[in-house]
Amino acid sequence: MNITVVKIGGNVVDDAAARAKFYAQLSAISGAIILVHGGGKVATELSSTLGIPTTMIEGRRVTDADTLRVVTMVYAGLINKQLVAELQSHGINAFGITGADGNLLRAHKRTHAQHNYGFVGDIDSVNIELLTQLVQANLLPVIAPLTHDGSGQLLNTNADTIAAQVASALAHTFTVNVIYCFEKRGVLRNVEDETTLIPSLTLAEYSALKEQGVVAQGMIPKLDNAFAAIERGVQSVRITKYSHLDGGTILKGEST
Amino acid sequence: MNITVVKIGGNVVDDAAARAKFYAQLSAISGAIILVHGGGKVATELSSTLGIPTTMIEGRRVTDADTLRVVTMVYAGLINKQLVAELQSHGINAFGITGADGNLLRAHKRTHAQHNYGFVGDIDSVNIELLTQLVQANLLPVIAPLTHDGSGQLLNTNADTIAAQVASALAHTFTVNVIYCFEKRGVLRNVEDETTLIPSLTLAEYSALKEQGVVAQGMIPKLDNAFAAIERGVQSVRITKYSHLDGGTILKGEST
Repeated sequence: MNITVVKIGGNVVDDAAARAKFYAQLSAISGAIILVHGGGKVATELSSTLGIPTTMIEGRRVTDADTLRVVTMVYAGLINKQLVAELQSHGINAFGITGADGNLLRAHKRTHAQHNYGFVGDIDSVNIELLTQLVQANLLPVIAPLTHDGSGQLLNTNADTIAAQVASALAHTFTVNVIYCFEKRGVLRNVEDETTLIPSLTLAEYSALKEQGVVAQGMIPKLDNAFAAIERGVQSVRITKYSHLDGGTILKGEST
Repeated sequence: MNITVVKIGGNVVDDAAARAKFYAQLSAISGAIILVHGGGKVATELSSTLGIPTTMIEGRRVTDADTLRVVTMVYAGLINKQLVAELQSHGINAFGITGADGNLLRAHKRTHAQHNYGFVGDIDSVNIELLTQLVQANLLPVIAPLTHDGSGQLLNTNADTIAAQVASALAHTFTVNVIYCFEKRGVLRNVEDETTLIPSLTLAEYSALKEQGVVAQGMIPKLDNAFAAIERGVQSVRITKYSHLDGGTILKGEST
């Protein structure tokens, strides 16, 4: 079985017209699909309305107890169920799930020498058996970016990381490809110029570009994670716009 | 296979100590379990904080678009995932789900001559195949009281009704018992006196009590629904406290 893990972020989640375009693109993918979604602006807006300050450290949301309540409501409730209901209306048998449901994603609370990230989880295990059962039942799992520690504590976990770890874990058994939906067309030689798309990259080519300083700073962790997933057995990682799931930049291992 | 459908409301959902007691009770039930939860105070509190007025008509929440957002966040997000994470910590493989997920509960928006209930759904179909797959995979479905119309619209649906309809639909294939967790010990002869518990009731006995005016006004729709489920093949319906799932009042058909 071929499985495509697709990750979407705020620019799709927050925009009804973008979602509609994205669903049409999704229908064109053959084989099983697992969708992972991020948060978008809604959690920040709701926190602000409720008077809960939002603190970010290096692009990660600091998750105190109040913020965890907000992201649980917004990610697992509002965004996840809106995606599921809309996908169902497009004839796609979507099934919303967090890392706590069926023990899908077991994690531990992050400890960090300098920063206290609060209720942020780093993944320890992926329940492959459960995901296999869901996709074999022709369901499309829609994963909200929450995990749990097995002791009753929900944890906030980055959606990009969930997509990479789920894909890597499934790659032991299935042929797995990943699509990261991105704000830009893909990896660009010049981040200001969408015509400078790099259509494909191997790890060696990426390393050379990194040395030359061609790849923009913000892309480096994304690409490092993507190549790490490829090293763990994922066939390809595509970085593209939600409106062109077969376009963008494709990252592959050396020998494929 | 034996399936027990258990419904809990605000008095369990809102109270951490009650939830802990309830989980211990749940572990003692043999066979498969499906849990249906109601809303509790949190949705009303969040609506109030956000300045959204709460309107009730005959005990049903009027669900305008803003209220639907709130209940989607609170029911499918906060409450459902808290229950799932806590059940997981008790070694119970809980799996949260709404009526939209996997097309579990298809409904239509209620039309009513006198009142506009807003985004409230009346159930048209229950996806028995999906529930069967989940319980056969040893998962414990935890159903949040939301349904969908198949056209992308989520709908707010009463948890008592979901429990009765899910149980009735499963009764075609399985031996199904229902437990409604209630604020009181069960059906009381005198609603002010917990020692006046009626331990069991048949439809004929209930009809006689109703004629005599013994059963309290508020219990009549609950008991009518319960006996309707029994007529549709459910083996028994128990009305009891969350702390005594084998106690309370048991309702049964005439000939069992």
